[in-house]
Amino acid sequence: MKKVKKIAVMTSGGDSPGMNAAIRSVVRACAYYRTECVGIYRGYQGLIEGDLVPMTARSVNNIVHKGGTILKSARSKDFRTKEGRKKAHENLLEHKVDALVVIGGDGSFTGGVVFNKEYNFPIIGIPGTIDNDIFGTSHTLGYDTALNTAVEAIDKIRDTASSHNRLFFVEVMGRDAGFIALNAGVGAGAEEILIPEEDLGLERMLESLKKSRRTGKSSSIVVVAEGDKSGRNVYELAQYVEENMPEYEVRVSVLGHMQRGGSPSCFDRVLASRLGVKAVELLIDGKTNLMVGLKDNKVTTTELEKAIKGGHTIDMDLLRVSDIMTT
Amino acid sequence: MKKVKKIAVMTSGGDSPGMNAAIRSVVRACAYYRTECVGIYRGYQGLIEGDLVPMTARSVNNIVHKGGTILKSARSKDFRTKEGRKKAHENLLEHKVDALVVIGGDGSFTGGVVFNKEYNFPIIGIPGTIDNDIFGTSHTLGYDTALNTAVEAIDKIRDTASSHNRLFFVEVMGRDAGFIALNAGVGAGAEEILIPEEDLGLERMLESLKKSRRTGKSSSIVVVAEGDKSGRNVYELAQYVEENMPEYEVRVSVLGHMQRGGSPSCFDRVLASRLGVKAVELLIDGKTNLMVGLKDNKVTTTELEKAIKGGHTIDMDLLRVSDIMTT
Amino acid sequence: MKKVKKIAVMTSGGDSPGMNAAIRSVVRACAYYRTECVGIYRGYQGLIEGDLVPMTARSVNNIVHKGGTILKSARSKDFRTKEGRKKAHENLLEHKVDALVVIGGDGSFTGGVVFNKEYNFPIIGIPGTIDNDIFGTSHTLGYDTALNTAVEAIDKIRDTASSHNRLFFVEVMGRDAGFIALNAGVGAGAEEILIPEEDLGLERMLESLKKSRRTGKSSSIVVVAEGDKSGRNVYELAQYVEENMPEYEVRVSVLGHMQRGGSPSCFDRVLASRLGVKAVELLIDGKTNLMVGLKDNKVTTTELEKAIKGGHTIDMDLLRVSDIMTT
Amino acid sequence: MKKVKKIAVMTSGGDSPGMNAAIRSVVRACAYYRTECVGIYRGYQGLIEGDLVPMTARSVNNIVHKGGTILKSARSKDFRTKEGRKKAHENLLEHKVDALVVIGGDGSFTGGVVFNKEYNFPIIGIPGTIDNDIFGTSHTLGYDTALNTAVEAIDKIRDTASSHNRLFFVEVMGRDAGFIALNAGVGAGAEEILIPEEDLGLERMLESLKKSRRTGKSSSIVVVAEGDKSGRNVYELAQYVEENMPEYEVRVSVLGHMQRGGSPSCFDRVLASRLGVKAVELLIDGKTNLMVGLKDNKVTTTELEKAIKGGHTIDMDLLRVSDIMTT
Repeated sequence: MKKVKKIAVMTSGGDSPGMNAAIRSVVRACAYYRTECVGIYRGYQGLIEGDLVPMTARSVNNIVHKGGTILKSARSKDFRTKEGRKKAHENLLEHKVDALVVIGGDGSFTGGVVFNKEYNFPIIGIPGTIDNDIFGTSHTLGYDTALNTAVEAIDKIRDTASSHNRLFFVEVMGRDAGFIALNAGVGAGAEEILIPEEDLGLERMLESLKKSRRTGKSSSIVVVAEGDKSGRNVYELAQYVEENMPEYEVRVSVLGHMQRGGSPSCFDRVLASRLGVKAVELLIDGKTNLMVGLKDNKVTTTELEKAIKGGHTIDMDLLRVSDIMTT
Repeated sequence: MKKVKKIAVMTSGGDSPGMNAAIRSVVRACAYYRTECVGIYRGYQGLIEGDLVPMTARSVNNIVHKGGTILKSARSKDFRTKEGRKKAHENLLEHKVDALVVIGGDGSFTGGVVFNKEYNFPIIGIPGTIDNDIFGTSHTLGYDTALNTAVEAIDKIRDTASSHNRLFFVEVMGRDAGFIALNAGVGAGAEEILIPEEDLGLERMLESLKKSRRTGKSSSIVVVAEGDKSGRNVYELAQYVEENMPEYEVRVSVLGHMQRGGSPSCFDRVLASRLGVKAVELLIDGKTNLMVGLKDNKVTTTELEKAIKGGHTIDMDLLRVSDIMTT
Repeated sequence: MKKVKKIAVMTSGGDSPGMNAAIRSVVRACAYYRTECVGIYRGYQGLIEGDLVPMTARSVNNIVHKGGTILKSARSKDFRTKEGRKKAHENLLEHKVDALVVIGGDGSFTGGVVFNKEYNFPIIGIPGTIDNDIFGTSHTLGYDTALNTAVEAIDKIRDTASSHNRLFFVEVMGRDAGFIALNAGVGAGAEEILIPEEDLGLERMLESLKKSRRTGKSSSIVVVAEGDKSGRNVYELAQYVEENMPEYEVRVSVLGHMQRGGSPSCFDRVLASRLGVKAVELLIDGKTNLMVGLKDNKVTTTELEKAIKGGHTIDMDLLRVSDIMTT
Repeated sequence: MKKVKKIAVMTSGGDSPGMNAAIRSVVRACAYYRTECVGIYRGYQGLIEGDLVPMTARSVNNIVHKGGTILKSARSKDFRTKEGRKKAHENLLEHKVDALVVIGGDGSFTGGVVFNKEYNFPIIGIPGTIDNDIFGTSHTLGYDTALNTAVEAIDKIRDTASSHNRLFFVEVMGRDAGFIALNAGVGAGAEEILIPEEDLGLERMLESLKKSRRTGKSSSIVVVAEGDKSGRNVYELAQYVEENMPEYEVRVSVLGHMQRGGSPSCFDRVLASRLGVKAVELLIDGKTNLMVGLKDNKVTTTELEKAIKGGHTIDMDLLRVSDIMTT
């Protein structure tokens, strides 16, 4: 096995808070272990285009608290082609890079697995996405921050909802997963939470809102996951309720991309610091095709292929808690 | 002139941060001047329905920092009718109320002026709206807080915009006025700001974005006022740019109702405290049909009719500053 | 075994963010299971003084996001006496309370265990303290929020530290435990972290600061746990460094009680919701002398006595990560 | 009069939020007017040491929202000597700088006035300090942000104060001026506010706290300006009250340096943008020895000497409002 003397790090796919803290951790861990480090700009696309820069412990001063990613991110069509990956490999060789840390989501890991198969190039993944939809870790980087962002926004919306006796439909992010919706919904005290993992049916939602109204609540918040499977988008849901409950003024708010930004929470910064160190240590130890993650507050590893395919099931117990909270 | 022994206070129209601080101030000022105080729930509608409660200095403990309004707010169709206003007047007499403080925007003040003409009932207005579109005050209650909310949201969006080299169209509130858009746009370092008071034309916006791109900016934020007069809504604007600048990935974010909520800024809390005291002192002094406001950091008064009709012109110098900032 | 028909809930000891969310959860879970619920004001002291009030699902509207505790908290000398506990028991009987939920830290649990031994009264504990120094749960209520509060404050201090090339000693809370210091220190990118669990010696700290200076850092943050065992308080530490490194301007900041307040993070709100439900379900199931907690993101139970005595050991791996981060 | 072809900008004295936005504005305005621009690091000290760098519109990308100052700040003993100023002048000539923008407080302006007298070198000042103690502007840069920081911290402290029926003494910054204390005190709903401009006497404070207690308040916040003239520091004040009101548990919190940091409020960012443009325009127009400031929401100018000597009187009307609020 070849000794790892130079490690490259990139961020790929949708950005998430904590990515900078993870970059910093990878870079500092390389410095600690006297391993060279280069940063790759704009993910796989930048790798193909040869956009690599050397990084030292000082390159990552004062970024632990910053949202976004200083290495920028991108989705790369070229990396899906054999030619693209060939060019990527050539650039890694040219820069004498021995191993790669990819910070991103399942799409980015899939690219990594394919690349590893073709070129036997050592790769470790760090799960960076606000959606928390990765198997093998209790938390992805940015998820905790996105929850706080969503909850703080809904707190503000509740001010105006309760001042006007209104019903608000608030759409949060999460792709096909309901993690953000379920947790932010419970955290914000939503009266209803609609997630892809559970299809309540519109009837039941209506029933529940009516009950809530009867028991004296004059305003309500319904949190809707962007991937909700009700067959209606958040605007159509709002219209449906307005037609069936004319006593409510209904409003819609789509929280949108602000959920991807912002200074990371302490949890995400610490998680990033821990995962970055572990990723470097694994590569130095000659490991590959693993994702680092968190389980029971300890850093663990999962095979990249499992992380991609495993899915991440929603906590049904929390759904139950949510029902009890809206008694 | 009849001595004022009991004052009623209400919040009316769209809610805004600082309304609770203003209610507290009115109530505490009444207590200080040994004048009775009642709160009216849900604005003019609650007045018509007789929804009044006595308030003491202790009723308003621990609300200075809260968004929304503990008295709730509403729009009232009934108050636009003679019968509605008659009923309102009867309820005031029944509760021995001598004078009224209305916290709200121009619609609420218009109602107050009509009511005063019909019943010669003393009324003082406190400008409470995030839109800042009232003549006679440099700042309306909630405007400063809404600016901070908008700027903080755009800061988060910028994280993800600059990580992905994207162009974001961000719609902010403000009804027909561009105050929030112009100030939040300058504050957030937006590359373009589209406001109702100035029609740049789509061509010019495109030119400007292209120039910004040429000078090395890879991501951009365009802040759009909801009342923008370009003839296209924010989604159509985004589409127009995407068609004409295919090099950009364009995204849209509508900040929405969260701008109306949240804990008020220190500025709004202090402003509310000052205006509430002045409103009570004016009524005790036998004044009526005035709006209290801020000018050159001093509390001033404006005739309600002027406040409604006067309009509030945007600061053209700040538009110029905005242009220079995007050099 | 007697059927549990009425449950009382109290908050005791130092307050922490999330206590209100936990009260809400206990009250709503009681409503869900058609069990009566009373709130006890000011912890054991209020119980002795008979300060109990019935609570319904509506009593806890709109508190999930609030810091502090609506039931207030206190430390009680009287409850340490046999007479005090006798009076407490009489009041519980008089109000027909069958079981008790205590939200607090180890001191509060100790009182609960003694009381249970004397009167065989069913008690479940919910760990509510920012210090995270309780065995049997990965997170206590309020800990996550306190971390964010500390990190945000240190972020602000870093602004001014790096503008002036200064060295800041920042003292954070945590009693005898270094959890807040270690995690907030890593999260805020501190150059040194001094915690009770590890005595580095002043020499080593000095060495480390000098190294940091040599490698080009012109400003530094040292995070100090309030329970640090260096034998010097934070002011003396600062003086020591100032004397030995005259090239630094040294400043001290004690974050203080703001760490106990503030709107809880989403994590703490969700945790509170889950623990409150479990506490009620355990009591209804006839269980007693347990603490509910979190392990591997699942709700678990621990015997109260173990929770008190077990201690909670710091994550040594995170200490290692911290060292690597300050390379 | 010599045409101004190159302008230098520095930050000097204590840093404040908004300084980066002002630097950005000066640099962008220079670019707009096709005037060269250099940044001077570490204020007058850096000028003496020749620490100057060219700046372009792109040098100040993405800093509008950042606390601190990218140019760093310092206090300079050397600039108080003739030799120091001579060296400073030589460095300006060597870099072909024609005019200087100084962002700072009265100490920094005093240095500028002396320098101008000796070398007839054009200087414009931008008032940057959180203390708001400068004549000729209603707001200094950073003051609005510091108010929000203080108020948010006190909001958190109030959570724990009211949970425990405690009395908190909170010390805020402001040097010899009570602006922060008075406004943050009113904004946070403090029961008492102690400022240098008004010596209430300890007796009166005690009387007021006792009255507040009698009227049913069980917790209280006293905000103390760091420059308070009671002859006792905040710890001694607390002890005095504890001795005279044993019914209170008294606690002290010194907010400290976090008040100087943090992302600037929208107000401070807009103010910075406006003042920076005006400073550059004045220099290009051949003006000197002026401070730019805000009056009645318009940008104005004041002679630097007046700005230094004029003082800034506290708003006595707000003191009155404060008294009424604590009824």
